[in-house]
This record gives sequence, structure tokens and C-alpha cells, in this order.
Amino acid sequence: MKNRVITISREFGSGGRTIGKKVAEQLGIPCYDAEIIQEMVKETGFTPEYVKEAGEYTPGSFLSSAFSNRLFGLTNEDILWEHQYKVITELAQKGPCVIVGRCADYILQDKADCLKVFIHADMDFRARRIVEVYGEREQSPEERLRDKDKRRAAYHRFYTDMKWGYAQNYHLTLNSGVLGIDQCVKIIASLY
Amino acid sequence: MKNRVITISREFGSGGRTIGKKVAEQLGIPCYDAEIIQEMVKETGFTPEYVKEAGEYTPGSFLSSAFSNRLFGLTNEDILWEHQYKVITELAQKGPCVIVGRCADYILQDKADCLKVFIHADMDFRARRIVEVYGEREQSPEERLRDKDKRRAAYHRFYTDMKWGYAQNYHLTLNSGVLGIDQCVKIIASLY
Repeated sequence: MKNRVITISREFGSGGRTIGKKVAEQLGIPCYDAEIIQEMVKETGFTPEYVKEAGEYTPGSFLSSAFSNRLFGLTNEDILWEHQYKVITELAQKGPCVIVGRCADYILQDKADCLKVFIHADMDFRARRIVEVYGEREQSPEERLRDKDKRRAAYHRFYTDMKWGYAQNYHLTLNSGVLGIDQCVKIIASLY
Repeated sequence: MKNRVITISREFGSGGRTIGKKVAEQLGIPCYDAEIIQEMVKETGFTPEYVKEAGEYTPGSFLSSAFSNRLFGLTNEDILWEHQYKVITELAQKGPCVIVGRCADYILQDKADCLKVFIHADMDFRARRIVEVYGEREQSPEERLRDKDKRRAAYHRFYTDMKWGYAQNYHLTLNSGVLGIDQCVKIIASLY
């Protein structure tokens, strides 16, 4: 019997991570998010910042890495992807859990009994939220969102060949801005 | 205060119409589906079959109409679209309701307080369901589904300029094959 896992993909600023943590709390199961990055840091020797950033760059676009060149074989991003694949598979084998981001829905498709969720929200809601949660930056919130959206979509498509944000890829998609964070938590937990 | 309306867009064979009817029943509000076609028949003089079929053809692709030529001004499909727009707006003004299909989410975006839902399901589930509900046809169920999916997506994009099945267009999308018809009804009704 495969473990039951809730995977949460999310637009930047939609509150997907908060929703994942609250669902896990309600269900009394672990929620993995930063833990995945910590495991990858241990396994690869890259810094946490590098691991975190690389998860949103497709190979070839991650200019900070001088060794990211497919002429020489695997890129750093490919190596990270392999470790991400291994870490997520192992976490899902440990027991029921919630996993936020990192293409877990794709990685686990034949390895766990997944409930695949996508959380999104309108630009206004997300812009307010990223300023509240992460503070102001030089770039405007809208520019930061557009930038992140583009990167996540490209990364997702490169490694999974699936269209980011396309309803048919998920069992459930929710607009957290309209429905509210707590309502989203309630719906997801009720489906477990 | 605008009326509260639930709009349900759905893939052919996903059970979206059944879900709409059950939600309306639970909430004690009307569900409009075939009623929209009847109203359009009354207003336009076209046959019910023509009205129904035209709702899945984009102008120019509906070959059965010899008069559908933009060189001569409005096509039959454009005329039907205008009536559809009017009928759906009037129904939403009457009071709270569920409206299935016919781009109601787009038509009502500024006219009602909408909960916008999209129902989809995997090919296998839908293929089994259309044979159960509509019986066998000469075309295989999979061909019928691919054909309908393509037409609905093209129609939707032509008149609304929105991507069909894209999570961001809806407040909630549900895979009825995995979650089950009754679970979908429960979630939607709980959000009203």
C-alpha cells in the first residue's frame, strides 16, 4: 500500500506554503518544504541559497554557475534535480505527509497515493502578501511576481513536460485570494 | 447587491452537469442548462439542435450554415452569442442560481457575485461515462471526447479570450473522476 501524500504546487505569494503547514498540522502529519532543501544541501555540498535558487531556474538560464554547460555533461541543475528526486521519493516512503513545491506531484506520480493540489491567487492579493511576508524589495511586488511566475513555469515545464497551472494536472486547484487561506485548508484536509 | 451565482464549466463527460444539478438541489436554487437553449430558441427562431451545436463551434468552422460568412456582417454564431449573453445576464438578475456551461463565467464577470468552477476528469473516466449517459456511437468514445474538447476550447477562446482549463481562470477546479461526483457537490455547496 502506497503512502498517502498531499502535494501542493503554488504561485509565489498565494499562501501555498502556509496552507500546506496548516493542513499538515490539522492532519497530524509532517509538512516538508525547507526540509527538502536542507537534505539536498547535505547530499550535494551546495549552499542552501544555491539549492533554493536553482529550483527556479531551468538549465542554461542559471548564469551564476560557470559549470552549467551541457557540453560537459550534467549541469548543476541536473545534479540538483536528481537529488531532489531522491530526497522527495525517500520522504514519501517514510509515511503520509504534505510536500510543498519542488515538482513533488510529478516525482511521486507512481510512487505514492497523491492528492495533487495547486494554489493560485490574483496579482493584487499576492502583491500585498509578499510585501507582508518577505518585506519590500527594490523591484516592485508585481515585477517580482511576474519574474517568479515565469521562472517556476519554465522550470516545471523543463523537468516535467507538464503545463504549469493547467487544471487537468491537478485533482484540485484553489484561488486562495477569493476563497481564503482557512477555507482552502478545510477543503484539502477534508479530502484526505 | 449582486446575486450569488455558481458557474460550472466542464469537460465533456466529466459529470459537470450532474454536479451542477445536485448542488442546486442541495442549495434550493435553480440550475440553468437546457433552459438557456430553450430561451435562445424562443428568441432566435433557430432549432434547439442548431443552438446546441453552435455553442461548440467557432465562427467560420460551422460549415452547416451557408450564411455564416463574416463578409456579410454578423455570423449566425455571433447572433447566437449575443442572445446567449442576454439570456444568461437576465437569468443571473432573477436571483441566485447555478449555470452550467455557455461561458457564463465570462459573461457574468461584472454582473454577478460568481463562484467560478471548472470540472474535469481523466479520459478513461469520461469515456466510460459518455457511453453510460449517451450510449454508443459510431465514433469511439475517445475520439468523441477529443473532438468535443477541441471544439469547446476553441469556442471559449474565440469569445472570451481566456485559456480553457487554465486554473487561474477559476476559483476552484475539481477532478470529478478522482474525487467523485458527490465529493465535488459537497465542496461546491460548502463554498456557497
